[in-house]
Amino acid sequence: MRKIMLPVVAMLLLLSTMLHAQEKVDMGMMQKIKDEEKNNSQITTIAHNITDVCGPRLTNSPGYKRAIDLITKTFRDWGLVNTGPEAWGEFGRGWSTEKSYVALKQPYYQPMIAYPVAWTNGTKKQITAPVILLDKLDSANIDKLGADLKGKIVMVKTANINLRSAAKAYSTRYEDSVLNKMPDTYMLNRKQIDYFVPLVNNEYKTTLYLQSKGAAALLKSNSSGRDGTITVDGTSAYAKGYDAPLPELVITREDYLRLQRMVTDKENVQLEMDVQNKFYDDDLTGYNVVGEIAGTDPNLKNQVVMLGGHLDSWHSGTGATDNGAGCIVMMEAMRILKTLGVQPRRTIRIGLWGGEEQGLYGSFGYVKNHYGDPKDMKLKPEQKDVSAYFNLDNGSGKIRGIFLQNNEAVRDIFKAWLEPFADMGATGITSSNTGSTDHLSFDAVGIPAFQFIQDPLEYETRTHHSNMDNYDHLSIDDLKQAATIVAAFVYNAAMRDEMLPRKPLPQPERFIFETDTPF
Amino acid sequence: MRKIMLPVVAMLLLLSTMLHAQEKVDMGMMQKIKDEEKNNSQITTIAHNITDVCGPRLTNSPGYKRAIDLITKTFRDWGLVNTGPEAWGEFGRGWSTEKSYVALKQPYYQPMIAYPVAWTNGTKKQITAPVILLDKLDSANIDKLGADLKGKIVMVKTANINLRSAAKAYSTRYEDSVLNKMPDTYMLNRKQIDYFVPLVNNEYKTTLYLQSKGAAALLKSNSSGRDGTITVDGTSAYAKGYDAPLPELVITREDYLRLQRMVTDKENVQLEMDVQNKFYDDDLTGYNVVGEIAGTDPNLKNQVVMLGGHLDSWHSGTGATDNGAGCIVMMEAMRILKTLGVQPRRTIRIGLWGGEEQGLYGSFGYVKNHYGDPKDMKLKPEQKDVSAYFNLDNGSGKIRGIFLQNNEAVRDIFKAWLEPFADMGATGITSSNTGSTDHLSFDAVGIPAFQFIQDPLEYETRTHHSNMDNYDHLSIDDLKQAATIVAAFVYNAAMRDEMLPRKPLPQPERFIFETDTPF
Repeated sequence: MRKIMLPVVAMLLLLSTMLHAQEKVDMGMMQKIKDEEKNNSQITTIAHNITDVCGPRLTNSPGYKRAIDLITKTFRDWGLVNTGPEAWGEFGRGWSTEKSYVALKQPYYQPMIAYPVAWTNGTKKQITAPVILLDKLDSANIDKLGADLKGKIVMVKTANINLRSAAKAYSTRYEDSVLNKMPDTYMLNRKQIDYFVPLVNNEYKTTLYLQSKGAAALLKSNSSGRDGTITVDGTSAYAKGYDAPLPELVITREDYLRLQRMVTDKENVQLEMDVQNKFYDDDLTGYNVVGEIAGTDPNLKNQVVMLGGHLDSWHSGTGATDNGAGCIVMMEAMRILKTLGVQPRRTIRIGLWGGEEQGLYGSFGYVKNHYGDPKDMKLKPEQKDVSAYFNLDNGSGKIRGIFLQNNEAVRDIFKAWLEPFADMGATGITSSNTGSTDHLSFDAVGIPAFQFIQDPLEYETRTHHSNMDNYDHLSIDDLKQAATIVAAFVYNAAMRDEMLPRKPLPQPERFIFETDTPF
Repeated sequence: MRKIMLPVVAMLLLLSTMLHAQEKVDMGMMQKIKDEEKNNSQITTIAHNITDVCGPRLTNSPGYKRAIDLITKTFRDWGLVNTGPEAWGEFGRGWSTEKSYVALKQPYYQPMIAYPVAWTNGTKKQITAPVILLDKLDSANIDKLGADLKGKIVMVKTANINLRSAAKAYSTRYEDSVLNKMPDTYMLNRKQIDYFVPLVNNEYKTTLYLQSKGAAALLKSNSSGRDGTITVDGTSAYAKGYDAPLPELVITREDYLRLQRMVTDKENVQLEMDVQNKFYDDDLTGYNVVGEIAGTDPNLKNQVVMLGGHLDSWHSGTGATDNGAGCIVMMEAMRILKTLGVQPRRTIRIGLWGGEEQGLYGSFGYVKNHYGDPKDMKLKPEQKDVSAYFNLDNGSGKIRGIFLQNNEAVRDIFKAWLEPFADMGATGITSSNTGSTDHLSFDAVGIPAFQFIQDPLEYETRTHHSNMDNYDHLSIDDLKQAATIVAAFVYNAAMRDEMLPRKPLPQPERFIFETDTPF
């Protein structure tokens, strides 16, 4: 058998090489990258530092600043150049919780799981107050309650009284068969944004109105949360001119439904709470953090291959999967390449962005400063020197392929780049778009920008923006695989003769996440 | 086809009737029971009252007393007779939490999910203290730390650093095919108990030693907990002569592992906590609650058919699936029968038990008072008048069949009784034993006592003894099905000419859960 089979295998290998004859891949270097990650991975250390040690990384808040400092130091220790924080413009205020205590006090005592919504006020002191049920969060319903609202803890009636089912697994992986057929994912269009932003701003204004009527606090919950997991984000009050609303607390779905049943029963339900939040006004500037491995080819070293993800997080967890994971992987990819002593022809630059959760602000600001503004499409000279930007921000799942973002010209290149990693599960190439994260900022000014396809694991079901977005919900093996593949992609992009082919320049328009008002 | 098939179906039906010719089932009444539950179910009301309204029902604690009062009133409202609390002997002290606040204070602030272990002390006042890691919870390791322990929050090193997988569904149901082959379940033998109790008592004594050395608190976690769900039980300090140990707090697995990583890293980790617990010494007596529908056959009304489950719960949830579910179903079965105005030949008696979680104390005490002590097998005259005891205590899952508890003589009877409910999924009869709950107290003195087979749902994986054991984790449809079937079983047992056949009387021995020391 062996004698017969060998020539067939050789022929197939030759055929495969011919098909991508134009795209050379340095298989020796691919193996070195795999070996470095397999034998000397620093993923657990980086992950522990970014999550446990820094704590929550809400933009412009102490944990975010700890992360910027820690990463700057790490980059320097690794020997990266041109590293450090880089201001991108005005973000607004930082915010953190200094104390958060919420409990059911009447008709009996029980501690409750609760987290303050970011950029809301605290209660000033410990309070004990009755819970009141509002039919709908609007000014008419607030007015209907009148003076009854004063000093009360408000909750808004929900009609959705069943927990999400536990009969399906919370953590899943993609079947191989779907990878090449991945549809557009996380895409929002201008119309959706223009519909969505006024709603959010309207809710924000209603909470200010509720505050003006003397309500003590507002309780919230998320219909998909269960088991002690709750999803918490923030208000617009990070931005200058936006006042902080009354204390808003997210509690478990189970407690929310219990309180609703009890208040509906006309029981005397009282909560005890002590919530102290702090705003940071000292520096409203937003920062990213960057670092480079300098290019070595005299003709190409002014060209750049970029990789990144957002560093900021929400605050009830430690932003492990959103988007510690992306930062950990991109940092580890840089470490692998630096440790291997690669001499890239183009410069390799990592950018970890702030303010993503409020509207991709950090990456958009960076692009605007360096490459141009999509609104008028007046591009800066550096725009033409960025070969590609690679992003990671869909949780802790390993890389299963890549979204082409409708750039069909890169298909065969990426096919060749993925081939050495087929045995690690990364085989998918889909022409679709994926949205809602920082590659959009680059894509908007015509720079080839890509987000990888990642196994979903429990990202959408459990960790995304939740109090369970912490180290122990990371899949370390998945992150190792992703770092290996990202290092390879970045290396290939830095070494090939040509930059990556580009799509036609988009029409000038407002950047998709740019709005008149913050949200 | 139809003409040919019909006689075959008729023949099969006839055959089926003949096989159980000796066991008559009143199919009209079965239908009435089904209809009453389908059209007028009170399951949601009872469930809401037992869980949300009463709160946690830790034995001899305020929530347990609220439940006894509420159920007594409910039974009276329904027209049950001989109802009310019934003392069974000395249990010990009640206990409740009046305040429970735990947060990470250094190196950054974040609130933590935590619940005090029952029958432990509080912190007296709010404290901020460093966390220290003990290699093992024993006196040698405590001595090794010496004066370093004073004022510290202690945690014990765990080697198990991975979360339970989320790749399997948390809520499951049995395949039909396994129902007749269910193995022995939840069974503990004397050897296991005699091994287990000294371990528990040793841990208890070690915590007293830790307290004597001045440690501020002990942190615990459960290796199977995740997502914000934590499992909390209690110490032996409910019993007279057992001192309360230092504050013990159960925290999430995620926080526990985070703290362990940070303390191992030699970071300065400090927690802020304020835990106020209260002991209730005013009445050490343990109580069950009972109620009856009186028998009407002059020759049989002194005989009794019993149904029940334990009413007490742990305290971090509201004991919805353990064992609110069993109480709700048994109460609803009584309500169905009373509402239908059945005239049972035998007396039907419901008993809801206390102190089950500490060792089946309430049911055992009841049996000892009324029917005899398994230690000497000196039986009281009433023992011979109990036809059967039916128990429910395996969560919120619907009834899929019944454990015969090795009493093969009842197999054909139960087969006939289950037949009208095959379309509701209850088809399984297994000769196996199931343990760890109150039917054992009856079984131990020779009374036919049975636990139903129930779909597992998320009982073992999520709710059992956890902070998620609350109303919203009940499956209302499953409880309705169970109430229907229990009402039918109890009715059948009360109406048939003979009592249920008995197994030979067991040999005198210590009751399985009876130990020299509480645990």
